[in-house]
Amino acid sequence: MPTPAISTDDVIGILERIRARHPLVHCLTNHVVKNFTANVLLALGAAPAMVEHADEAHEFAAMADALLVNLGTLDEPQIAAIRRAIPSANQARKPWVLDPVAVGPLAVRTQFAREILELRPSLIRGNASEIIALAGQTGRGRGVDSGDPAETALAAARSLATLTGGAVLVTGPIDYATNGTQTIACANGHPLMTRVTGVGCAQGAIAAACVAVADGPLAAAVAAATLMGVAGDLAARISTRPGTFATALLDALDQLDPATLRREAKLS
Amino acid sequence: MPTPAISTDDVIGILERIRARHPLVHCLTNHVVKNFTANVLLALGAAPAMVEHADEAHEFAAMADALLVNLGTLDEPQIAAIRRAIPSANQARKPWVLDPVAVGPLAVRTQFAREILELRPSLIRGNASEIIALAGQTGRGRGVDSGDPAETALAAARSLATLTGGAVLVTGPIDYATNGTQTIACANGHPLMTRVTGVGCAQGAIAAACVAVADGPLAAAVAAATLMGVAGDLAARISTRPGTFATALLDALDQLDPATLRREAKLS
Amino acid sequence: MPTPAISTDDVIGILERIRARHPLVHCLTNHVVKNFTANVLLALGAAPAMVEHADEAHEFAAMADALLVNLGTLDEPQIAAIRRAIPSANQARKPWVLDPVAVGPLAVRTQFAREILELRPSLIRGNASEIIALAGQTGRGRGVDSGDPAETALAAARSLATLTGGAVLVTGPIDYATNGTQTIACANGHPLMTRVTGVGCAQGAIAAACVAVADGPLAAAVAAATLMGVAGDLAARISTRPGTFATALLDALDQLDPATLRREAKLS
Repeated sequence: MPTPAISTDDVIGILERIRARHPLVHCLTNHVVKNFTANVLLALGAAPAMVEHADEAHEFAAMADALLVNLGTLDEPQIAAIRRAIPSANQARKPWVLDPVAVGPLAVRTQFAREILELRPSLIRGNASEIIALAGQTGRGRGVDSGDPAETALAAARSLATLTGGAVLVTGPIDYATNGTQTIACANGHPLMTRVTGVGCAQGAIAAACVAVADGPLAAAVAAATLMGVAGDLAARISTRPGTFATALLDALDQLDPATLRREAKLS
Repeated sequence: MPTPAISTDDVIGILERIRARHPLVHCLTNHVVKNFTANVLLALGAAPAMVEHADEAHEFAAMADALLVNLGTLDEPQIAAIRRAIPSANQARKPWVLDPVAVGPLAVRTQFAREILELRPSLIRGNASEIIALAGQTGRGRGVDSGDPAETALAAARSLATLTGGAVLVTGPIDYATNGTQTIACANGHPLMTRVTGVGCAQGAIAAACVAVADGPLAAAVAAATLMGVAGDLAARISTRPGTFATALLDALDQLDPATLRREAKLS
Repeated sequence: MPTPAISTDDVIGILERIRARHPLVHCLTNHVVKNFTANVLLALGAAPAMVEHADEAHEFAAMADALLVNLGTLDEPQIAAIRRAIPSANQARKPWVLDPVAVGPLAVRTQFAREILELRPSLIRGNASEIIALAGQTGRGRGVDSGDPAETALAAARSLATLTGGAVLVTGPIDYATNGTQTIACANGHPLMTRVTGVGCAQGAIAAACVAVADGPLAAAVAAATLMGVAGDLAARISTRPGTFATALLDALDQLDPATLRREAKLS
């Protein structure tokens, strides 16, 4: 088996830089997951901030180290804030991550996601249905669930990565990170992660923290998959009930270290 | 004592259908409880989705299996979204649940609750003060607390059920479910459930999941009372402190099974 | 060492009145922390309510026992609600607390915080950077983190307290409460409290509960520092990982009692 272009050592380097620099992640994300997302970033070692007024979102996107745009509960004020924040981040050369939640079956967000795709996100994170829909193909999603296996979205993911010049992370039982030419698979993670709301959305926030400190978006996408996936593996050894599992997942993110990542990471 | 019209076996049947079908519950609910509500639905086996833009709420209400309308942090955009979502659910013959949080002392939501009452919710869930106020009588609530014992709301509950043709669930130390002619009491539940924010609101979401799969709204109301009440009973055996109790409540919803329900349910 | 103007016995008296009266705290706070804030108030023995429509916020501010205004995710609808709620609270002689989250680097909230400062909050709670910026000086904050040690904000805090006639609580490794002439230090608390989102914001909500039942705002500020600080100390003995620590913090607030406060409080 050939060595993947991004290795566990790259992931470890990214984690260590997050812990040393505490990158400030500006999250324009959905109402359901704001608290959990902030706690995931804090547990990992990053610094979350949600600044939502359009004028302030514009101002803050240039100050933060990365911007997360998650469309889960998109409404008109958030559309206005996102339209001001992304160009501000781009102008300040700060990376931004797009999480196109439930793009496909819902018209407003699908059109808006395609609009902001033109602003070239550094990284896109979504399930197979969302990635397929964002690329303009037809998927089978219903709400936040993916009706399609991750593997079916690989062509769409590569096409989006080529279009944006960034990376795409397709999540599922196996996550795939691609920059259009190289594709890395990460087999970490546990089905319980789908029984806690916001694990996927918080992985998008981790991706933003990673892209703020990584050597390029592909490494950041692989790191986001690995860090959340290994934390999920560890948490599932503590509990297989969703309440205690969610708590254990935050503890596990705090507990991640080089030795654990070397032992647990399943990259290929 | 006569056999109640809805039995524990009916509740078990509803739980099994939720686990098999994962009904998609569209939650237009309050900001405080969105995360907990989603986690409660996931722990039980249902699928939550919060879609809040008015255009998308209209679109999504027809796709989801049930709609929850909770007025806890009602604002103008949510009023607009609810006005579009309910007719869409009704037209698609999808059931919807009304949780009239703090109706009575607050004018905007009280007027709005009476407006949407005309759209005939399949199920209404509230504490005694809310049910009394919604029926146009005078109660003693302050905010989300009920100043009235559940029993005082039974006449109002029957009157609302007759008006809508659906069921009403009045919650309190003992919960009462009625369709206007039959009334079932559920004595499950623990006082700690009032020390965790959103337990009542999440019960409304459970009611929506139940009504999506039940043979009629009365069975769904009884199931919502029993499933949340038994989970509360189990969780209180794990911890009587509110932080660990909340976590244990999610675990208990995941853990519910026919044997536990047969042993624990207190219906009459 | 002289006896501080406010003693542990005063804090105990405030806790006992919270447990006896369950003061209703109207929270106009940020999206990230609404759920945690409500759970903190419930764990302590107070009653939370979030009423956000401007008309209802006006109506409800006069009914509740205290109002919390937290600017963390300020947007235009919330500005409108706050502008209606504070005068209503003032007219009904209900105390209100200002938490000027991230005031300083962000223009909209900084201008708005100074506008509502004219309405004389009973209590202001912030980190050093926020207090310095609110007083019109120049600090080093970035987002919600403080770039300045608490001690550097003491002059600004005294000046704000003199201006409003209320109290100011500056939080950091050591918290300082002042009414402009007397200053009390509270050395309780643990660094893990900065690894859970919303602990500081929830302390503002505790301050509102305290000011509703205290003999004056200085005692309330000291009580808010002590109650949250001691709970943090207790929780850190249960777990030093952020997920389980957050749960333990809620349990510890529930567990606080006179003997524990006498043993643990570090006031000077």
